[in-house]
Amino acid sequence: MQRAAALVRRGCCPRTLGPWGRSQSSAATEASAVIKVRPERSRRERILTLESMNPQVKAVEYAVRGPIVLKAGEIELELQRGIKKPFTEVIRANIGDAQAMGQQPITLLRQVMALCTYPNLLDSPSFPEDAKKRARRILQACGGNSLGSYSASQGVNCIREDVAAYITRRDGFVPADPDNIYLTTGASDSISTILKIMVSGGGKSRTGVMIPIPQYPVYSAVISELDANQVNYYLDEDNCWALNVNKLRRALQQAREHCNPKVLCIINPGNPTDVIHFAWEEKLFLLADEVYQDNVYSPDCKFHSFKKVLYEMGPEYSSNVELTSFHSTSKGYMGECGYRGGYMEVINLHPEIKGQLVKLLSVRLCLPVSGQAAMDITVNPPVPGEESFEQFSREKESVLGNLAKKAKLTEHMFNQVPGIHCNPLMGAMYAFPRIFIPAKAMEAAQAHKMAPDMFYCMKLLEEMGICAVPGSGFGQREGTYHFRMTILPLVEKLKTVLQKVKDFHIKFLEKYA
Amino acid sequence: MQRAAALVRRGCCPRTLGPWGRSQSSAATEASAVIKVRPERSRRERILTLESMNPQVKAVEYAVRGPIVLKAGEIELELQRGIKKPFTEVIRANIGDAQAMGQQPITLLRQVMALCTYPNLLDSPSFPEDAKKRARRILQACGGNSLGSYSASQGVNCIREDVAAYITRRDGFVPADPDNIYLTTGASDSISTILKIMVSGGGKSRTGVMIPIPQYPVYSAVISELDANQVNYYLDEDNCWALNVNKLRRALQQAREHCNPKVLCIINPGNPTDVIHFAWEEKLFLLADEVYQDNVYSPDCKFHSFKKVLYEMGPEYSSNVELTSFHSTSKGYMGECGYRGGYMEVINLHPEIKGQLVKLLSVRLCLPVSGQAAMDITVNPPVPGEESFEQFSREKESVLGNLAKKAKLTEHMFNQVPGIHCNPLMGAMYAFPRIFIPAKAMEAAQAHKMAPDMFYCMKLLEEMGICAVPGSGFGQREGTYHFRMTILPLVEKLKTVLQKVKDFHIKFLEKYA
Repeated sequence: MQRAAALVRRGCCPRTLGPWGRSQSSAATEASAVIKVRPERSRRERILTLESMNPQVKAVEYAVRGPIVLKAGEIELELQRGIKKPFTEVIRANIGDAQAMGQQPITLLRQVMALCTYPNLLDSPSFPEDAKKRARRILQACGGNSLGSYSASQGVNCIREDVAAYITRRDGFVPADPDNIYLTTGASDSISTILKIMVSGGGKSRTGVMIPIPQYPVYSAVISELDANQVNYYLDEDNCWALNVNKLRRALQQAREHCNPKVLCIINPGNPTDVIHFAWEEKLFLLADEVYQDNVYSPDCKFHSFKKVLYEMGPEYSSNVELTSFHSTSKGYMGECGYRGGYMEVINLHPEIKGQLVKLLSVRLCLPVSGQAAMDITVNPPVPGEESFEQFSREKESVLGNLAKKAKLTEHMFNQVPGIHCNPLMGAMYAFPRIFIPAKAMEAAQAHKMAPDMFYCMKLLEEMGICAVPGSGFGQREGTYHFRMTILPLVEKLKTVLQKVKDFHIKFLEKYA
Repeated sequence: MQRAAALVRRGCCPRTLGPWGRSQSSAATEASAVIKVRPERSRRERILTLESMNPQVKAVEYAVRGPIVLKAGEIELELQRGIKKPFTEVIRANIGDAQAMGQQPITLLRQVMALCTYPNLLDSPSFPEDAKKRARRILQACGGNSLGSYSASQGVNCIREDVAAYITRRDGFVPADPDNIYLTTGASDSISTILKIMVSGGGKSRTGVMIPIPQYPVYSAVISELDANQVNYYLDEDNCWALNVNKLRRALQQAREHCNPKVLCIINPGNPTDVIHFAWEEKLFLLADEVYQDNVYSPDCKFHSFKKVLYEMGPEYSSNVELTSFHSTSKGYMGECGYRGGYMEVINLHPEIKGQLVKLLSVRLCLPVSGQAAMDITVNPPVPGEESFEQFSREKESVLGNLAKKAKLTEHMFNQVPGIHCNPLMGAMYAFPRIFIPAKAMEAAQAHKMAPDMFYCMKLLEEMGICAVPGSGFGQREGTYHFRMTILPLVEKLKTVLQKVKDFHIKFLEKYA
């Protein structure tokens, strides 16, 4: 209906302050004639408490922004207040937040965004023509030619077309249909949306969602929120975190005894062919987290999308396997986390479910249009001959080249430290080294009621100012301990961070020897 | 863990196109040696279907973007394809989308946003100093001084401070605490978040959520998604959609027989004092939808926030009643719907629940930072003496003055039509006129398996190109029929729209007399 403002007619609206500076409302006074106001009892039991709240939300855990990050915030405040620490700043290595770590935005992206935001700039000679062309195209597709209008719930049409064109270029021969593209508020939103539409049933028929261990904690958080069954499958640390289909199968068989596993989430893909065949065979809906498709550093590796491999496997697969893949503006070389831009591509989704998806998305009207515009530029980089091409290429190479260098550096430095073992960083922007924690440190952790790796990370934070996330937040094989750290700090700073971890670890081993 | 890119090592990655232009994957071929591929059966039963999907999502309805809007999209495509219609364009009056209707953005807001987006512009002489000051303040509060970094999950600190300062100014004497402010992706997101954290229990102890009828359909949609109990209370159409506490009480008593009503949503507030007393007495958590706080047109009305009234009612209320209120960048005079900026203020929320709320919000990492920046400018308008003050005031007055004029015009025009009755539009940006539907039209609707008002709106769309939403999407007393239409079109266009509705209605009455 007409959502009306809080209208109070004259005469029945509460009066303003009385002469004593305390509130005196005529209406309240009138009301109190019939009400037993009990000023003697100033605080009642609250309605919304830990006991009465949604138990599924209560069960959610999210390590990347968990207790260690709260502690980091406290320490930062203490530093600001002049409290002396063995360090002068907290380095937030808990999250892949490129620009917070000093990475500069890609110029073209910001130029197009500024032009879309304030179209007066379209007349300015200081913006390149290809930026203006992109901005005009986006604005023409927006209601009233403005980023301030709602877009279609599935996303701006021309941006979905650009995403589809990008996928087609990327995968070589497989066509992409804009109708299968849903723009989202980042990959976290994609994951939450597609799982939300899928989870059903109770008891043994409750939906099970298979996720790798270690995982990225948005998966476990969403599963918890939806009260679905989390089904873990372990990656093989000794084999560079490879995915082993036999382990996958075993996990699935065990899970079938107590729930209905319908979804298989892939973050570290191993061999997509094997995984796709497994999903086909076992009738699992595939979710492929492909947000790091640009961040592949190892010369032995190349990105192949699940969709491409699916189509290469022939029609039995490509017309049957239900697949959703995710991408975003946050990772890659753009590093535009704050814009929360993303998309998902759905393959073989039932047409009726597509309708349901649009309906579900429409409840929030639309996703932020500025994030959609950022996604457009992410998938629509300049080509040779365009004015911005050279600068763009330089900036892109610089980001990706630096990341590759930092990946090597990190692996090398960690593996020099006794009691730390780090697999090669083939892609993405994190290290997940395994750490040896001595028995005495375990006892100390227990005394503090902390998991051993949480204890380790807490000490690392308190003593060195480095905020890393304990492996337990991502899951790890029992008896093994890890932490996760981003490699995003600028090279010189990263060297300092790694040196500090090394010094800390050696001291830690000595202390608890 | 390290979310890695889809890495495939050389040797086990699928090959590219074979000479026949069809995909031939070595891996797939290897795999097929052990797999029974069944090309004869090209499409299997899908995993995700209407039958297997989340039944709560399936039950969601969302009229504002429902079948009538899909139909409008189809008609627009037909017009583009040159198919002749009795009109040349579809006027989308289904939604309050100001800028899509031609409203110009507030210049200062877009200037600050452009400066934040592309900080090189901070050196440009074409931007006013107060815009630059605002942009610098926002950027300084962002990680790496960039809108591209993640913000705190609760929102950028200085923006929450600005929101709190705005509320304090607005309410006169009641202090607002930035710690009680949660920035959100628009009011729809606020509503969904606070309800999500609150809904619990099963059977008779399942949370009940009281909403007015007519409502705004995001409420019913979220209630459906969360599988909570929707408890309707009817507003009094004959009394300008006033809220009657006796009716509220009756609805509550009835609901208590089958669920546990814990939440009272207020969209049309009536007298906040009575409502607050009722919530206090009946132990209900109050949700106050105050997105139209700037859009009050009737000279007899003034906006009083629920929070202000709560504090005026004295400490028994102000220290006990749990209240959350919503605001956004979309409505008001900014009309920046596409930025999806919003906030909620929580009063008397249990400290543990605040922690839970931050945790829940952190699962999506943060909300779009550009939307947060837009919210900042919405609550932080220029003051006399600032460079932008004059232009800003002119633009604001123009938007609000025009809306007041259009509110009057709409009421006046509708009430001239026999069989249409429209209450005075005291605020917001919609009319919700009651329409008389003749018996023969009811029969025709039934023959088309449509609700009578859906039938009416469908005809209005097909014959006149006007997209309005049937009252049934918002709820209405049985046997009454309405439609909702925004008054946002520019004055001359609104006159055309109203004239078309008039012509249509008269013809409709004649046809089905």
